Amino acid sequence: MAILVVGSVAFDSLETPSGKRERVLGGAATHFSLAASFFTDVRVVGVVGEDFLPEHEAVMTARGVDTKGIERAPGKSFHWTGSYLKDLNAADTLATDLNVFAAFEPKIPESYLDSEYLFLANIDPVLQMQVRRQMPNVKMVAGDTMNYWISAHRENLLPVLRELDVLLINDGEARMLSGQENGLLAAQGVRALGPRSVVVKHGEYGATMYFEGGCFRTPAQPLGEVVDPTGAGDSFAGGFYGYIASQKERTPEVLRTAMFYGSVMGSLACERFGTERLQATTKAEIEERFEGLKAISHL
Amino acid sequence: MAILVVGSVAFDSLETPSGKRERVLGGAATHFSLAASFFTDVRVVGVVGEDFLPEHEAVMTARGVDTKGIERAPGKSFHWTGSYLKDLNAADTLATDLNVFAAFEPKIPESYLDSEYLFLANIDPVLQMQVRRQMPNVKMVAGDTMNYWISAHRENLLPVLRELDVLLINDGEARMLSGQENGLLAAQGVRALGPRSVVVKHGEYGATMYFEGGCFRTPAQPLGEVVDPTGAGDSFAGGFYGYIASQKERTPEVLRTAMFYGSVMGSLACERFGTERLQATTKAEIEERFEGLKAISHL
Repeated sequence: MAILVVGSVAFDSLETPSGKRERVLGGAATHFSLAASFFTDVRVVGVVGEDFLPEHEAVMTARGVDTKGIERAPGKSFHWTGSYLKDLNAADTLATDLNVFAAFEPKIPESYLDSEYLFLANIDPVLQMQVRRQMPNVKMVAGDTMNYWISAHRENLLPVLRELDVLLINDGEARMLSGQENGLLAAQGVRALGPRSVVVKHGEYGATMYFEGGCFRTPAQPLGEVVDPTGAGDSFAGGFYGYIASQKERTPEVLRTAMFYGSVMGSLACERFGTERLQATTKAEIEERFEGLKAISHL
Repeated sequence: MAILVVGSVAFDSLETPSGKRERVLGGAATHFSLAASFFTDVRVVGVVGEDFLPEHEAVMTARGVDTKGIERAPGKSFHWTGSYLKDLNAADTLATDLNVFAAFEPKIPESYLDSEYLFLANIDPVLQMQVRRQMPNVKMVAGDTMNYWISAHRENLLPVLRELDVLLINDGEARMLSGQENGLLAAQGVRALGPRSVVVKHGEYGATMYFEGGCFRTPAQPLGEVVDPTGAGDSFAGGFYGYIASQKERTPEVLRTAMFYGSVMGSLACERFGTERLQATTKAEIEERFEGLKAISHL
């Protein structure tokens, strides 16, 4: 069933120990959509500027992603400049040019209204809430956020958290949101704020899903070279949520399997710059990775 | 089959966010022995001072550990003072009083010579090598080391590494030993120095075993309170190696299962100060944890 994702469609300029790239296609909604597109239909709501060319849109449409909800605005697209030279696990933001994103007001096309799954990618929680209100009848809501919204816009974020079936964040964000240092207590603290489940991503160590009465851990595929970690978390979310949306029921087994697909898509995303790796992968390769992940973690 | 372990039997004074303890029984050989004793026979080679009382020895003998190889020397036992107040993942060493350990020369009792499994716990690599030479016919050799030996005694450590079937270290030690930042490359770099397999421990994120042609990851049990992480790595090693020694063959399945038992014993060890938790546990509880670990990681 179709996922509606709202989030950034952007350009990234970045340097990592593997090299440097200028203005590659990026943005949370882009990475999420590409990853989820291997599992289900995806519809994007976002905004881009005049620098967003047909060749950029084609990256998404080639994977069957519905881009009707990507609004064109006068000016330039959101542009993020970051460096991972100091630490591959933590981006050093050098510049954030919001550009057309600064005045973004999400508009949902008529044809998107029957989407049963909603993903609120990492954007201003006020916008997340606007979209949630326009999609009151979805079957499931998942979302992401980041340190900036947690620390500086907490009062806007809290109502969003109460709307979520699943929140996907990383270790540092879970600690910041809960005020707890311990990983388990942090996840419990986050769940107490509203989300029924929390998926905490541990970078190279995989991820843990915490839910009522338990947890489930997926390993990560060991990678000899992390070329570009940008979008790995969004790709994890895309694999995770895309798989869930492709299944009839949300059973514990479906959720566990979704964690593994999240890990698969997150690790693939790191292997090349920008969206290159997800553009080049195939369903067969994804299945192979999935089996590989089982082989390195199952008795 | 029996494991011979050589290492420290010591007293630890420590403080963690959960509290403070003075001179509790500790030492790598102690933690290792208690953990391994749930799986197989264990024989200890070490040295203690006059402050090592029958009540301390009874902690080991109550678990069937053979303490004949623990030498009594005039003076005090090895005493380590450390704090985890700043970081539960990294001990801050406040004092290391080697005492009788300074002049330790491992002597292997006649009755230990038929041990088929040798564990060289974290001590001076010169001593590790001495013990290895006295046990030339063992079926398997595993060992541990730490940053101090890696940086200041590398030339003595290198010959030990070439003797090992399995080296158990943590992420930081793997990076230091290999000079590689990336986890996979670090493990490959360590293997290139000699050990046929390397088990890299990731603290709260579990551990990865790297071997010819692949790897295997075990998760860690999420713990709401890490009371005292001292000896968690030695307990992991005890569970891992104890299980291997209890099995007829060293098949891939046995090694994978050993990783899970290592994780079980490591997590148990953290739940109370010193050896308290391993003294109090039972085979039934260990099996329950093992099943729990499968439940949170298997599809």
